[in-house]
Amino acid sequence: MKKIAVLTSGGDAPGMNAAIRAVVRRSIFKKIEVYGVRHGYMGLMAGDFYQMDLGSVGDIIHRGGTILRSSRSELFKTADGQNQAIEALKIAGISGLIVIGGDGSFKGAAKLTAQGFPAIGIPGTIDNDIGGTEYSIGFDTAVNTVMEAIDKIRDTAYSHERACIIEVMGRHAGDIALWAGLCSGAESIIIPEVHQNLEDVMIRIQDGRDRGKMHSIIVVAEGVCSGEDFRITMKEKFNLDTNVIVLGHLQRGGSPTAYDRMMASRMGAKAVDLLLEGEKGSMIGWRNCQLVHVPFEIAGKDNHTINISDYHLARSLSI
Amino acid sequence: MKKIAVLTSGGDAPGMNAAIRAVVRRSIFKKIEVYGVRHGYMGLMAGDFYQMDLGSVGDIIHRGGTILRSSRSELFKTADGQNQAIEALKIAGISGLIVIGGDGSFKGAAKLTAQGFPAIGIPGTIDNDIGGTEYSIGFDTAVNTVMEAIDKIRDTAYSHERACIIEVMGRHAGDIALWAGLCSGAESIIIPEVHQNLEDVMIRIQDGRDRGKMHSIIVVAEGVCSGEDFRITMKEKFNLDTNVIVLGHLQRGGSPTAYDRMMASRMGAKAVDLLLEGEKGSMIGWRNCQLVHVPFEIAGKDNHTINISDYHLARSLSI
Amino acid sequence: MKKIAVLTSGGDAPGMNAAIRAVVRRSIFKKIEVYGVRHGYMGLMAGDFYQMDLGSVGDIIHRGGTILRSSRSELFKTADGQNQAIEALKIAGISGLIVIGGDGSFKGAAKLTAQGFPAIGIPGTIDNDIGGTEYSIGFDTAVNTVMEAIDKIRDTAYSHERACIIEVMGRHAGDIALWAGLCSGAESIIIPEVHQNLEDVMIRIQDGRDRGKMHSIIVVAEGVCSGEDFRITMKEKFNLDTNVIVLGHLQRGGSPTAYDRMMASRMGAKAVDLLLEGEKGSMIGWRNCQLVHVPFEIAGKDNHTINISDYHLARSLSI
Amino acid sequence: MKKIAVLTSGGDAPGMNAAIRAVVRRSIFKKIEVYGVRHGYMGLMAGDFYQMDLGSVGDIIHRGGTILRSSRSELFKTADGQNQAIEALKIAGISGLIVIGGDGSFKGAAKLTAQGFPAIGIPGTIDNDIGGTEYSIGFDTAVNTVMEAIDKIRDTAYSHERACIIEVMGRHAGDIALWAGLCSGAESIIIPEVHQNLEDVMIRIQDGRDRGKMHSIIVVAEGVCSGEDFRITMKEKFNLDTNVIVLGHLQRGGSPTAYDRMMASRMGAKAVDLLLEGEKGSMIGWRNCQLVHVPFEIAGKDNHTINISDYHLARSLSI
Repeated sequence: MKKIAVLTSGGDAPGMNAAIRAVVRRSIFKKIEVYGVRHGYMGLMAGDFYQMDLGSVGDIIHRGGTILRSSRSELFKTADGQNQAIEALKIAGISGLIVIGGDGSFKGAAKLTAQGFPAIGIPGTIDNDIGGTEYSIGFDTAVNTVMEAIDKIRDTAYSHERACIIEVMGRHAGDIALWAGLCSGAESIIIPEVHQNLEDVMIRIQDGRDRGKMHSIIVVAEGVCSGEDFRITMKEKFNLDTNVIVLGHLQRGGSPTAYDRMMASRMGAKAVDLLLEGEKGSMIGWRNCQLVHVPFEIAGKDNHTINISDYHLARSLSI
Repeated sequence: MKKIAVLTSGGDAPGMNAAIRAVVRRSIFKKIEVYGVRHGYMGLMAGDFYQMDLGSVGDIIHRGGTILRSSRSELFKTADGQNQAIEALKIAGISGLIVIGGDGSFKGAAKLTAQGFPAIGIPGTIDNDIGGTEYSIGFDTAVNTVMEAIDKIRDTAYSHERACIIEVMGRHAGDIALWAGLCSGAESIIIPEVHQNLEDVMIRIQDGRDRGKMHSIIVVAEGVCSGEDFRITMKEKFNLDTNVIVLGHLQRGGSPTAYDRMMASRMGAKAVDLLLEGEKGSMIGWRNCQLVHVPFEIAGKDNHTINISDYHLARSLSI
Repeated sequence: MKKIAVLTSGGDAPGMNAAIRAVVRRSIFKKIEVYGVRHGYMGLMAGDFYQMDLGSVGDIIHRGGTILRSSRSELFKTADGQNQAIEALKIAGISGLIVIGGDGSFKGAAKLTAQGFPAIGIPGTIDNDIGGTEYSIGFDTAVNTVMEAIDKIRDTAYSHERACIIEVMGRHAGDIALWAGLCSGAESIIIPEVHQNLEDVMIRIQDGRDRGKMHSIIVVAEGVCSGEDFRITMKEKFNLDTNVIVLGHLQRGGSPTAYDRMMASRMGAKAVDLLLEGEKGSMIGWRNCQLVHVPFEIAGKDNHTINISDYHLARSLSI
Repeated sequence: MKKIAVLTSGGDAPGMNAAIRAVVRRSIFKKIEVYGVRHGYMGLMAGDFYQMDLGSVGDIIHRGGTILRSSRSELFKTADGQNQAIEALKIAGISGLIVIGGDGSFKGAAKLTAQGFPAIGIPGTIDNDIGGTEYSIGFDTAVNTVMEAIDKIRDTAYSHERACIIEVMGRHAGDIALWAGLCSGAESIIIPEVHQNLEDVMIRIQDGRDRGKMHSIIVVAEGVCSGEDFRITMKEKFNLDTNVIVLGHLQRGGSPTAYDRMMASRMGAKAVDLLLEGEKGSMIGWRNCQLVHVPFEIAGKDNHTINISDYHLARSLSI
């Protein structure tokens, strides 16, 4: 293999740039050419490639977002789109592709692989909801972003006596809510994976008040409902007044933490090595503290499981 | 004067602890006793005081919130409540009071002054909407908190093409929105002090898109409307899809910035000096880069004016 | 077991408070009494205990340092000191002890265990140099602190053309230097575990300059030498002018990251569970992404190994 | 005037990019062309200019450093160098220049002005030591950087009993040391502007110890001596053991704070306006909370005065 390409697809995740840097520098270290694809699969189909050198990725390891941009492409889901992409790659003499993104991106990568074109996936999404891996790039940074926001909210505990509802991202997974909730000592954590009895939430708030703690934090994963819907529900059921905070897309930004830069670097380099070893198609995953690679088919979000013992730990510590 | 007291009232503002520290240490430096009042005016009426020493304020200069807690008291607005307070102060032998808070707090302080009890006010509110002073403690920290959040949102510019609406605090003032908007390069800033033509907002977004900038930030001060209401309006008028972010009370928290700690220290020490000089009742203000003191009556929010030239500067720089 | 105690010993590590919180709340959840020991082993010998409740650990999860204070005790290394400690524990009716600290702390814990007193250790040191565990509380925060400092140094690359030497902590381990160096894209990482050829360091700096990169970062672990000694050596051997930065104890401070709070919470709860299960003496460790417990004797720093593949990865990416 | 140019010179200061952005966008707003000069005066003499548009400064307001790079040029100090520069400007049809930098930069600007070429200076240096202005861009960010580092050091107070010496920048000015010291509650602040009695420093440390405060912070401005020299002195005079921290160039980096972005925006726009108004040569300054402009000759560092009342305030609050 002499030339490979790399693209980022789907939603942003902090650490994607660190992964791109690792792919580029590992390729050069291994003496192969590496091309960046602009705008994800859309750029792939259009042949929007450019050769990258050491300087292309200088000074990006700390930056959020992705210098290659991204896209969500309907066309690429069709056979036509996929053929177009393979054609563009062949014309450029590229014989391997690395895809950094979420589970949707790997469906596309699997299509290329099915046609014989080698592709390696690197899991990159703040939601940490990809099957086959316990970790996806961007998660640690997002958790810290939410946790730091809740730390600031707690400072203001004395001046108002309302419970605060924080709506956080995660699509259908509760990972961000669980980690951010446990790490900020939230009184209640509402996630899709566990049915939550609202009376129990109210009791916890009341117990806190009896102890002099007037201020409670309830973290709600967007996969359950919106913060506003939760506010309305608690008002209607218990006449509880609350404030709602919606952090939105700031959870996807910010400079990546050390853990995200390390994982991005390990996974990026590993992806290059796998292509050079002749691996045809798989996603790099993190399991039992080791880098593994699994078939793309396992990467669907339905295969993701949350660490339920952390949930029970959080409940026992927020009594 | 041998004994003075200090309390914090109303909403939290980062830097209140630094101000308390300055009051306490300046008092001890000037060899007078100083008492902390817990829970604002409620604690004042209840005589909930405790003597403070150097150690009472050790290690609090960097902490958000207020160690004296706070309250909003309806009872204190009555003559009964005020008499109760003065009685409690006299019983404790306290002959001067320092009040750190917003304009509501100074109405209360003015009542004490009217009865002959010396009181000095220190402006503390993130909204920076107090008359008679160009700066109130907590504003710089809140602006930086919002600005940093918008910085993170900008990282994610490539993966989605929606404009982002950020709803920020300020009560009826546009100061936080103006500063945070200018400092983060927001495309539009919507504040109560200036009528904003929504077609103009839409044109700016469109111009940005024509230039390849798919992502726009619109900062909306809560004094105009909620972020959700603005979203609905833009959808109905222009069929524009947007994301809404509500930062809420995290704007009131966090460790105070250097500027807030410096202003809190200057104002706290000045308040003690003024009481010792025999000043009967006024609020410390910041005008033309100098500490001044003004009658409490000027401190109402209706007397606050925004720096409109900054608004025009922001517009010219966000073309 | 009805009553247990917890202490922190040795150097500070961010996350110790989160671990104390987890120990206290897990104990209460399991309906046993828990006592905090002030000032580490010195306080243990003196019987300086106090019962802790839910409120004792309210609002500490985000704080650096340790509310129980710490100490380094020579007396505790003697049989007399250890007997004194066991006596104090028995008088208070305490039948189990949790020790949060570094390898030195576990030597002490092992002595208590040898006398039949159950003790569980939780690894807490920013140096991450404890045998038997791949992770010790405080490491992730320290790495991020150093990494963020280097990020700021890189901003100033254009105005001066000197290489920067950053001296970092770690005692005899290179973990902090390796992680912080890789995550900030340092050009050279000097650690005790790997002999580094200084000519190679000079060549890397020169290669960078030939490519227009005038500014290089060299991270030096204190276990190799001081930053000043390294500066002198590079000046004498190659006539290279450099700036030296010594971050010192700020690496031990700061609010713990999410990962440190999560690990502290998991380990703290696990320590309580182990005592209740009748475990007599061991340290909790993290291996292959699982909580395990190992004999104290394994916890010595001589049993710690660095992840050498990360070192080779760093070299290949900083070409 | 139809075309102007802008350059950055001397040491980096956070906020320089925000100033460049303001210059560029204000120029376009006023319908004149604006050119960026790469590498300060070196690039000016070489005619290394490029036209800038709105996109050239997109997304830089939050970035530390300067996209135009910088340089220190000996050649520009000569008449030959200056003539070369004016020649290059004339060839490009540029009739006005904006210089962002420290006092050394303005000496150069004054030379151009003396030859009839209009130049406006914007004060940019973290040392805040420029005459004629109470504020220079970069100072607030540097102060916050140092203050946050000291906040982290304080966390580790319990595990070691040494005083910490923090060596900070400022060239011959004590501004950074004074602000960072006051805002972090340092026990002693050593600045060039005030003779400091070392016995007094030792007494303060001892008083703290008697009160149970084992840990003291001494901030030393580099204009007095190095942290290492201070350590040696205190050891020799009082046998006091201390730790030394040298923050070095990280003080020049980092994302600019809101205050720096606001001041940079105001000054950048003002500089353009002044050139268009026909102003021939002056530096923009901040005095009494107003933008003013003063002759370059006043900008020397010998004309800078520190706010000595802040020093006395700091002493009274750190008793």
